[in-house]
Amino acid sequence: MMKSTDLLTASGVLLTDQYQLTMAQLYFKLGIHETTAQFDHFFRSNPDYGIHKAGFCIYAGLGSLLDWLDESVFGENEIHYLRHQKSAAGEPLFKEDFLGWLQNDFSAKAVNLYAMQEGRVVHPNVPIHVVEGPLAVGQIIETGLLNIVNYQTLVATKAARIKQSAHGQLLMEFGLRRAQGLGAVNGTRAALIGGADFSSNVGASHVLGFTPKGTHAHSMVQVFLGMGQSELDAFQAYADLYPDDCLLLVDTIDTLGSGVPNAIKVFENLKRKGHRPVGIRLDSGDLAHISIKAAKMLNEAGFPEVSIVLSNDLDELVIWQIITQIQEEATRYGVDPEKLIHRLTYGVGTKLITSSGDSALDGVYKLVAISQQNEWVPTLKISENIDKTLNPGNKRVWRVYDQRSKATADLVALYDEDVRNQRPLVLHHPTLATKQRCLDADEIDHIEKLLIPVIRDGEIVAERPTIPEMWAMRDTDIEALDPGVRRIMNPHTYHVSLSKKLWDLKQAMIQKTKAA
Amino acid sequence: MMKSTDLLTASGVLLTDQYQLTMAQLYFKLGIHETTAQFDHFFRSNPDYGIHKAGFCIYAGLGSLLDWLDESVFGENEIHYLRHQKSAAGEPLFKEDFLGWLQNDFSAKAVNLYAMQEGRVVHPNVPIHVVEGPLAVGQIIETGLLNIVNYQTLVATKAARIKQSAHGQLLMEFGLRRAQGLGAVNGTRAALIGGADFSSNVGASHVLGFTPKGTHAHSMVQVFLGMGQSELDAFQAYADLYPDDCLLLVDTIDTLGSGVPNAIKVFENLKRKGHRPVGIRLDSGDLAHISIKAAKMLNEAGFPEVSIVLSNDLDELVIWQIITQIQEEATRYGVDPEKLIHRLTYGVGTKLITSSGDSALDGVYKLVAISQQNEWVPTLKISENIDKTLNPGNKRVWRVYDQRSKATADLVALYDEDVRNQRPLVLHHPTLATKQRCLDADEIDHIEKLLIPVIRDGEIVAERPTIPEMWAMRDTDIEALDPGVRRIMNPHTYHVSLSKKLWDLKQAMIQKTKAA
Repeated sequence: MMKSTDLLTASGVLLTDQYQLTMAQLYFKLGIHETTAQFDHFFRSNPDYGIHKAGFCIYAGLGSLLDWLDESVFGENEIHYLRHQKSAAGEPLFKEDFLGWLQNDFSAKAVNLYAMQEGRVVHPNVPIHVVEGPLAVGQIIETGLLNIVNYQTLVATKAARIKQSAHGQLLMEFGLRRAQGLGAVNGTRAALIGGADFSSNVGASHVLGFTPKGTHAHSMVQVFLGMGQSELDAFQAYADLYPDDCLLLVDTIDTLGSGVPNAIKVFENLKRKGHRPVGIRLDSGDLAHISIKAAKMLNEAGFPEVSIVLSNDLDELVIWQIITQIQEEATRYGVDPEKLIHRLTYGVGTKLITSSGDSALDGVYKLVAISQQNEWVPTLKISENIDKTLNPGNKRVWRVYDQRSKATADLVALYDEDVRNQRPLVLHHPTLATKQRCLDADEIDHIEKLLIPVIRDGEIVAERPTIPEMWAMRDTDIEALDPGVRRIMNPHTYHVSLSKKLWDLKQAMIQKTKAA
Repeated sequence: MMKSTDLLTASGVLLTDQYQLTMAQLYFKLGIHETTAQFDHFFRSNPDYGIHKAGFCIYAGLGSLLDWLDESVFGENEIHYLRHQKSAAGEPLFKEDFLGWLQNDFSAKAVNLYAMQEGRVVHPNVPIHVVEGPLAVGQIIETGLLNIVNYQTLVATKAARIKQSAHGQLLMEFGLRRAQGLGAVNGTRAALIGGADFSSNVGASHVLGFTPKGTHAHSMVQVFLGMGQSELDAFQAYADLYPDDCLLLVDTIDTLGSGVPNAIKVFENLKRKGHRPVGIRLDSGDLAHISIKAAKMLNEAGFPEVSIVLSNDLDELVIWQIITQIQEEATRYGVDPEKLIHRLTYGVGTKLITSSGDSALDGVYKLVAISQQNEWVPTLKISENIDKTLNPGNKRVWRVYDQRSKATADLVALYDEDVRNQRPLVLHHPTLATKQRCLDADEIDHIEKLLIPVIRDGEIVAERPTIPEMWAMRDTDIEALDPGVRRIMNPHTYHVSLSKKLWDLKQAMIQKTKAA
């Protein structure tokens, strides 16, 4: 299914689960489809990649979500399809009055939507979206919202980790060929928000206003060999066409025996003509060891500044290992390890775009309150697992910064509390009755309100930041984390707390539900 | 990026890597862009999910690939974008003559494409696509082909495993909300080809001609509670609207204490009115244990036939565990284990659509031959890892069936060999010089040619089978596998062999390249 008409059908308002529509019809029939409800979207845990795990996430996806909500309507095509769905008894599953409402009255933007800002650090069990609006609309948009934001947050998080393990060096997203199908489209976007500087993906880069990047493939050298020519001929031909963008893949035959020496010959020719060679790419073998030896050869040939691009199934741990090995080995070969580390750049494919090790963010979307006679009635879903019992009610989220201006906790409170004025500020553990922190005035630098209104009264009211603007927010937020939380392995747990009032509400509701 | 215009740009012909375009321009400049080349697409290994791995794959994606090739053209939008890409020196990166060729002369279908048939069993290191055509076209379509087929084959394989572990019971794909973004669109398609019977994904089901399926969410019960009503009220309202499709989620409050008893009351009402209740869904807790107890309650109430749908982070191992536990425990509670197993159906989300445990198929696309003076010149890419050294040359693929009509090996041979007439048939190990099997005439039932022409002379010539037709091929192929290869854990390795002639060519080329 890649025909453009099919793709638009499958990615429009019907990017939803069947039960959203059957539930919406039930609410319509009962006349409660426009009752105001509140849903929270949050994820339960940071990605766990097996032997390593994340200490925080980078939120991404809002721009795409707003685009989707903006265009999602039930048109002729959608209504026609729904009209022909049958019950098991052969009756129309959806009735004409409901279809009429979908076609004429439904608006995906008929909600108040509060969201985080893309690029910001976010934490488990803290709402990253709050949707407040007609019950039926809140249900119908659930699936698309989760689809768009769960994945982009997952990939942005992975990209941030890879960028961090690469000591902030240039990171190129190379994953289109191994991505999960058209997930690549927004996967590329998320990789760019989280940590990649460029992508090889031409179409996605185009739409996002980025220049796609790349080198060349082994096949280019093979073509020349197949025509009876040499690796050097291939490199020279490439350099002739791209004299100012000459990045050569040197491992088709023998990296150190032919690839690097041939690249150096071509670089010398370029230099004579006044061009600046860009670099070489290593795509196989012991990347740390070969990069040291290649760096030595390039240094000795007078090219201490050209990049060494590493690729081949990289992720944050492999990059960490490579850098550690360089720090330990390079000096022995007469290469300055820090200089080498700062000339490395990375092409990361499969493991970034698929978030290898943890291929889904466990984001959920839960009904937390429903309006009755103009009052919010909090709703609860109890779980046998206490960690999975919902935080009920209409809530707001705050981030508390300590005297060092480090983020010390996210605080989830009820909507009518202004925690900025509470001193001491009580941070209640989300599940343990006896555990709480009290912060005095002198322990708090400032408190920030996190969720911002992005849709209000049917209109998108959010600014649309550029990706570089998102990078600024990301870098500020990551800098404000305790180094223990930033760690790639065994990170400290960041505190996510409840206000005393929310804790008391939750406990009262649990007691009441159990007693019923 | 979810605007329909952006989506179409990013999923059209620009669903490619930048280096494909820069290499294509080089070939254009050298006048070799229309030289005929052959590329093989194959995957190196079956998915390995960590503690379990696949013994075979189910091929999927061809239909989508053909749709994509059919619509992929460089139009004004694409050319305009490429025209404005700049080299590092500020010059246009792509020259007008090359852009003219892309716009006027490029056709993504200007290749002969040979492919497997969707739904069929496929094995590592056997070409699943052979692309034979103009060098520049072969490069430009590489990325899209890999993107589309790698992922669909990955998911179809996972779906087949889940279906198998579920003893063939009804399987519903529920993963849209946790899928990798728009990967879900074709992920749903692949899940259906591989093993799912239905999906909750409305849009994808629509396009594929399937009826989407679903139950209801916890939120529906919460809404009624929030309005001061009860779980029973919620169930009854749902049953009133969907009397012939009544499937109730029973774990919002207390599965056995309230959910199942309330469902039974509603089912009794339905039965009185002549309707047939469909089932209950269990989404939390010890699913095996609770399903036994729920089955007992339903049996005693006179509903031995209603389904019990299981969901909640299922995969093939979890389902295997559930069935094993039922086989061990059910009798003790007075429930027939086999009857219970045959009333279970499964809703599988995240772990199916993302192929949890192994989130990418390692499919590669390699230049294996180039035509020079109307002769095929095989090309090679040597790797330090012998398993990764290419099988060179223009090749064909055969499947050998033994006297039991079981598939005993896939045989990769050169294009001008007809292995159907060779007796004894030599099956050479792909990497070990001394290892080969010789099959005499009486050991072979028949030999089947696997790759079929799907594009020829610029036209799509393949039939487009329906998904049920793919199921028939899938079931035949799986049935023809040795049970050891079908095993979900520790499967036997299926034999993939080279013909003697291909083996000899490969060795000669390795020697020649190393000597050069």
